[in-house]
Amino acid sequence: MDSSFAALWTSLLPIGRDRTTGGYRRFAWTDADMACREWFRDQAASRGLDVEQDRNGNLWAWWGSPGRDAVVTGSHLDSVPDGGAYDGPLGIVSAFAAIDVLRQRGVRPSLPIAVVAFSDEEGARFGVACVGSRLLTGQLSGERARALRDADGFTLAETLTKAGVDHAAIGRDDDALSRIGTFVELHVEQGRGLVDLDRPVGVATSIWPHGRWRFDFTGEANHAGTTLPDDRRDPMLTFASTVLAARTAVEGNDARATFGRVLVDPNGTNAIPSAVTGWLDARARNETTLDDVVADIGAAAAASGESDRVGVAVTSESYTTVTDFDPALRDGIATLIDHAPLLPTAAGHDAGILATAGVPTAMLFVRNPTGVSHSPAEHAEEADCLAGTDALAAVLADLACR
Amino acid sequence: MDSSFAALWTSLLPIGRDRTTGGYRRFAWTDADMACREWFRDQAASRGLDVEQDRNGNLWAWWGSPGRDAVVTGSHLDSVPDGGAYDGPLGIVSAFAAIDVLRQRGVRPSLPIAVVAFSDEEGARFGVACVGSRLLTGQLSGERARALRDADGFTLAETLTKAGVDHAAIGRDDDALSRIGTFVELHVEQGRGLVDLDRPVGVATSIWPHGRWRFDFTGEANHAGTTLPDDRRDPMLTFASTVLAARTAVEGNDARATFGRVLVDPNGTNAIPSAVTGWLDARARNETTLDDVVADIGAAAAASGESDRVGVAVTSESYTTVTDFDPALRDGIATLIDHAPLLPTAAGHDAGILATAGVPTAMLFVRNPTGVSHSPAEHAEEADCLAGTDALAAVLADLACR
Repeated sequence: MDSSFAALWTSLLPIGRDRTTGGYRRFAWTDADMACREWFRDQAASRGLDVEQDRNGNLWAWWGSPGRDAVVTGSHLDSVPDGGAYDGPLGIVSAFAAIDVLRQRGVRPSLPIAVVAFSDEEGARFGVACVGSRLLTGQLSGERARALRDADGFTLAETLTKAGVDHAAIGRDDDALSRIGTFVELHVEQGRGLVDLDRPVGVATSIWPHGRWRFDFTGEANHAGTTLPDDRRDPMLTFASTVLAARTAVEGNDARATFGRVLVDPNGTNAIPSAVTGWLDARARNETTLDDVVADIGAAAAASGESDRVGVAVTSESYTTVTDFDPALRDGIATLIDHAPLLPTAAGHDAGILATAGVPTAMLFVRNPTGVSHSPAEHAEEADCLAGTDALAAVLADLACR
Repeated sequence: MDSSFAALWTSLLPIGRDRTTGGYRRFAWTDADMACREWFRDQAASRGLDVEQDRNGNLWAWWGSPGRDAVVTGSHLDSVPDGGAYDGPLGIVSAFAAIDVLRQRGVRPSLPIAVVAFSDEEGARFGVACVGSRLLTGQLSGERARALRDADGFTLAETLTKAGVDHAAIGRDDDALSRIGTFVELHVEQGRGLVDLDRPVGVATSIWPHGRWRFDFTGEANHAGTTLPDDRRDPMLTFASTVLAARTAVEGNDARATFGRVLVDPNGTNAIPSAVTGWLDARARNETTLDDVVADIGAAAAASGESDRVGVAVTSESYTTVTDFDPALRDGIATLIDHAPLLPTAAGHDAGILATAGVPTAMLFVRNPTGVSHSPAEHAEEADCLAGTDALAAVLADLACR
């Protein structure tokens, strides 16, 4: 049977790709994101699916009349800086392709099916992840969201206005939420679990608890040449000690701790910095471990700060508890699709936000040969993507034809 | 006797000052720098001094006809990011004020006196320090200078064209150089040597050898949550180890080693970086010590890179050998101005560039109560600045009335 997957995939691929790095820069509400949204509308229109943008900027394409008990699938179109092509878009391309598969087979669902593209999942621009699904479910208030700022100082409120979205109306949307009977998100695996198991598709068990913490190191700007070592209050030293403490803190734990982002002020070659800010991304199999890891890193930072005479302040910017997906839904899906293996994940997803909000939710993972993600090198073989599409089609048929 | 110092100082103070930090952002050829240059022309004009801009963008204000054996004084107007008010401008304000002092006293110099403002001393924008004086003396070629790029990707050639400077004409300027009989630069001290000696003004003996090295750490971008610690190639870890190695390398040495500037790619909270670039500023009392310190840091970086599976490349971006100021000139000046104390400095200056080029050169330092420099907190007491002006006036009179 012909699949529409390749045509869908190819049409989305050029949008928002950086020519130098080969990575994607599809940040929320930028030109690249708007072009992805236009692509979504075009794909829906060419399939006769009605599109609506909800109050929070999430896009919905409907097969059947929008209404209760809908079977919803989808993911997100935005990316991290220089991200890969698969994280997010694979779930949306597979969703449209799965609908094509069902129609080719003459399936007539008794429940409405919707494809959703959630806004700003990665949080690359405004610093908070899953903004679209968190607003929808009320886990992020409209008030806090409006005040978020990007690196150029623009608020989300201003940005939404420019994009034609009424920022006064953002926030928990019970109408949109109440229509979702089930949510299934297909996603490229961000690890090598399926490689080790030699299987193309798997089903998620849970999402590790995870969060982001901002570490502000405050020293004193001074001349890099003339200032004696003992006279320095150099926050770069304290930052460096903390980066290494994060590596030590996860040794022997089922946890991750990463400093991937840093800002230095004034960031001049011949000036000791006045301030360094680093962001810690931490995750663990359970909340006790996560809390212990973050506490260890905070204590190491404070101790280094004391000996360096550098101020250290740690601010929690987000915290997501462990998310267990619906066990009955999960096991039913695994049985349906060739007894697919069950895997946990350390990555956050819109599916996790919906599960936390009480929506029966499941996730499918497609094999990633290297495990690399959030990188231009992120990849999945086309045969595995087609297996994912077929699995998703089977799940949608099973859920929507009851 | 009235001094014009305060009026000169106050008129320059607001230009290029950041309202939030209180620091200066007078980067070469920006609006702030152009405004400083306009200020220089205004001050010269109000004193009846002819102004010329040489082929390399350095400004000269002449008391008497431009010609051989001129007694030249001055410094620079540009700043590091969020720099202080004194580093550079104090030397130019004091030069104009010293001319006012001499005129009030009715001094009639037999040799021409010039005030010079060298372009782009700090190198904050294009990454190379002392661009104006290095071009003048041929220590930086026009070809290399034209290709320098700022953070926004603009070349110095493009920037000079916009500023009305013919970039094809930059490079060694024997005509301008041959006129300089003696050069005396007054500068705020960037340390507490004069505080410890309880003296307002000192004379420089030498400038420590110093340089800048770029450390490129190359790893692999990946997901901060899902990538196992052992699967990571995280260049932030190697950078952090190298920052701490720099601190260790100067322990017990008469040396400085600082990482004040870092760029991270892609710099996302939930992405392991693909690359980190850090810049090392290193200085030492002698070249053997400097070379040893840089070699130690390079070796530590390579060792960390090997265990982190991160590529490390070290590139020397600039290197300045030890600079001894003219001993006869130095000792004569010290005797003249109340037996001022002699001090070495770890900071580079245009005076060092001219001394290296064979120009008889001296430097005066004005006391800095905290020693802080390259920071908004940089300061000198007005009484000490007036003592510096008087000392400079005495030196100019002695040199120009022979």
